[in-house]
Parts: sequence; C-alpha cells; structure tokens
Amino acid sequence: MPDSDHKMASSNKDPCKKETACSAKCAYVSNPYLETMKEDVLYHFDLGTKTHDFRAMFGDVKFLCVGGSASRMKAFSQYMNELLGLGSATDDITNICAGTDRYSMYKVGPVLAVSHGMGIPSISIMLHEIIKLLCHAKCTEVLAFRIGTSGGIGLLPGTVVISKVSVNACFDPCFEQNIMGMLVTYPTVLNECLAQELLKCSKEINQFNSIIGTTLCTSDFYE
Amino acid sequence: MPDSDHKMASSNKDPCKKETACSAKCAYVSNPYLETMKEDVLYHFDLGTKTHDFRAMFGDVKFLCVGGSASRMKAFSQYMNELLGLGSATDDITNICAGTDRYSMYKVGPVLAVSHGMGIPSISIMLHEIIKLLCHAKCTEVLAFRIGTSGGIGLLPGTVVISKVSVNACFDPCFEQNIMGMLVTYPTVLNECLAQELLKCSKEINQFNSIIGTTLCTSDFYE
Repeated sequence: MPDSDHKMASSNKDPCKKETACSAKCAYVSNPYLETMKEDVLYHFDLGTKTHDFRAMFGDVKFLCVGGSASRMKAFSQYMNELLGLGSATDDITNICAGTDRYSMYKVGPVLAVSHGMGIPSISIMLHEIIKLLCHAKCTEVLAFRIGTSGGIGLLPGTVVISKVSVNACFDPCFEQNIMGMLVTYPTVLNECLAQELLKCSKEINQFNSIIGTTLCTSDFYE
Repeated sequence: MPDSDHKMASSNKDPCKKETACSAKCAYVSNPYLETMKEDVLYHFDLGTKTHDFRAMFGDVKFLCVGGSASRMKAFSQYMNELLGLGSATDDITNICAGTDRYSMYKVGPVLAVSHGMGIPSISIMLHEIIKLLCHAKCTEVLAFRIGTSGGIGLLPGTVVISKVSVNACFDPCFEQNIMGMLVTYPTVLNECLAQELLKCSKEINQFNSIIGTTLCTSDFYE
C-alpha cells in the first residue's frame, strides 16, 4: 500500500454543524499561545508572520488541497486556475514557498495547494505549519482535502475512493503519537458529511466511478 | 528533536571485518529475487534496469551520502567535487533523478549524494531503492552516511555528533516495522569502527568539535 495514501477530508470548522443529523466527529486542538506570539516562523514554508502579511496573502482561502508531489500540486493549481475562470491551465503559478525545497505551495483564488512529501512525519510537519498559517490569516470555514494515488483492494483501476476513515498498519482507526513522553491517540474517522457531499458531486458529474471507503495508511511503501 | 535526524553510519560490507577487535553488528538482508528480475523499476528515482546502465552509471560508487534537503545534497556534491579535485564547487552537477520530484541524486567520482525528504517513511523508500541500485550496479565495500542537522542536549552549538546508535521516541535502540502483518524489530546500533574512524579524522583536521553520541529519531518535528 502506498505510504500515507489516506485521503483526508476534514475541516477546522466542522461543516457537519450545519446539519443536525450529523454528529461532529472532528477533533479540535486549541493553542492559546498562538495569539500572543511576537513572531511565528513557519520554517519549512520559509514564511513568517513578521516577514509576510498572512492575512493579505491567505485570508480568502476556503479550500486546502494537499498531495505528496510538488509537481502534481502545481499541475492541480493550474487545473483549478482554469476551472475557476481565473486564467489558463498553462499559466505559470508562482510557488509561494520558493525559498525552501521542503514543500511547494500554490494559491489560485480560494484554493491553496500544498505538497507534503512522503510519509506521516513529512505530512505532519506540513499540517502543523499550514494550520498555524490559516489561523494567523484569520481564515474561516476552510475545508481540507488530501488528494493522491493509492492501491485498491477489490476495486476497478481508476476508481476514486472518498475515505470515511483511515486505518493504520494494525487496521486500527487511530493515529498514535509520542508527545512529551506520553503516547497520545487520535481518532482517524473523517468528516462523514463532507464525504457524502463529495460522493453526491461525483454522481452528478458522472465522469468516473467513486465510492466511499476505508484507506490503509502505513509508514512504508515496500513492506 | 528534528525528525529523522539520526546520522547513519553503516555499510553493506562491514568494515569491522577488517579489525578483529570489533564485532560485526550490521544486519544483512538477503533478497534472492533481485538477480532473477527481468526489470527493476526504481520508481521514486525515475530509474530502471532496462532504461539505465546501472553498472556504468554507478559501478564505482564507494560512498553513499544522504540528507533531507535536495538543495543541500546538491551543495554537498559541489563541495565534494572541488575537494576531490574533479572540478569547482560552483560547477552545476546534474541531478540524476531530474525526471521525478521525489528525490534528487548527484554523483561526483565515488561519492553518490541523495536527498531523502523528511521522516522515516520517506528515507525508508529511498534506502530501499538505493540499496537495490547499488546491488544492480555491482558496487562493493560501499560506506553509507546520513549527514544532517539536529538539536543537541548538553552540547555546544556547532558540535558534530557522530552517532553510535539511534533511539526511537521511547528511547529504545531499535526500529519497528510492520511487515506483512508481523511486527519486525531491527537494532539501530551503528558501525562502531566507522564512528571511531570518523572521530579520528575529525581530531586530525581539528576544525570543529566532534563527539560520538546517541541520536534521538522521532516521527514528528513539533511534538
């Protein structure tokens, strides 16, 4: 199974709240220190609150789309550029993180596309910094998606899997992390309403086969 | 602690064998299928045994030097280029993996420099493919090093730590991996003779403070 090939569908403001039939399953993490920081350097993006105006640069972001490969995220931003009527799919979109080779970042209208490299540690560093970036930019109601390739069991090649949950190498629906010597477990159930909405969109477009499924996310590629 | 910031000092042919005082602690992994493969595509390098002559390209490699950042590995190869008398440190060394954005690879004389991104999963994919590459190229007596930055506890900034062992987030000197549903544990003790040799070289050069130490390698950067 390709490493870290879960498709994330979460949000920092739970869209489930709009529909009372759905229970809010997203985890909220509060960081009271963010607002009092004099400077926040997002090292792996080569961006900082003193050197960049996050609100002006990112304040209108509503969709965060992430994927492993930098070139794929550039191609995705070019595709969105044309789809949103902002330009052509051949326009050269500027890499906002050109000052570093850790990640690449492209913005077209309300869509922010960011690469995350391979594996959970790599994506976790990116997520840590991008969530702080969106917070500093005072963004609201942002939906986050991971878009990527994966092997599929019992599925026709080309099937788009909208993940309802990702499981680890032990098939448990959780993510474990050592924080200051303590093992902390997070649930990996994703936003059910958003998954259903994506499936509905896919059925309406009717260009490819989509299903809601479970994605296995491991820490290697070959074993 | 920076993620995956252990400095590896291992080899596929244990140099300890030359000195009877040292015990060979390196793990040998045999893959009997390698020789019978009609084609081996090293996907994340965009290289393959049918499309590239590995023996001609890499047969003389004796030193594998890896690090997280692609630009740093390019700078390292340029530095080695001048140090080995092969050219200047400003020469533009070709990226052998230019066809992909997953990793970068540079070769100067017997030195192969490869980037590995951030985190254990990312470096594990690179190591898997580079070891197969060296095997296909019939390389012998190759020494492998990871070179990178790290925080240090009780050390003066700028100290070079030559790792004798890396420990995980639980401070155990091992690496655990799920292979086909089985948890496999590998020791992470590194080549003691090579570490001593590096320390001796450093003392002779006498340009910076070097010590032999333990490196903590975790799966995150911020927690």
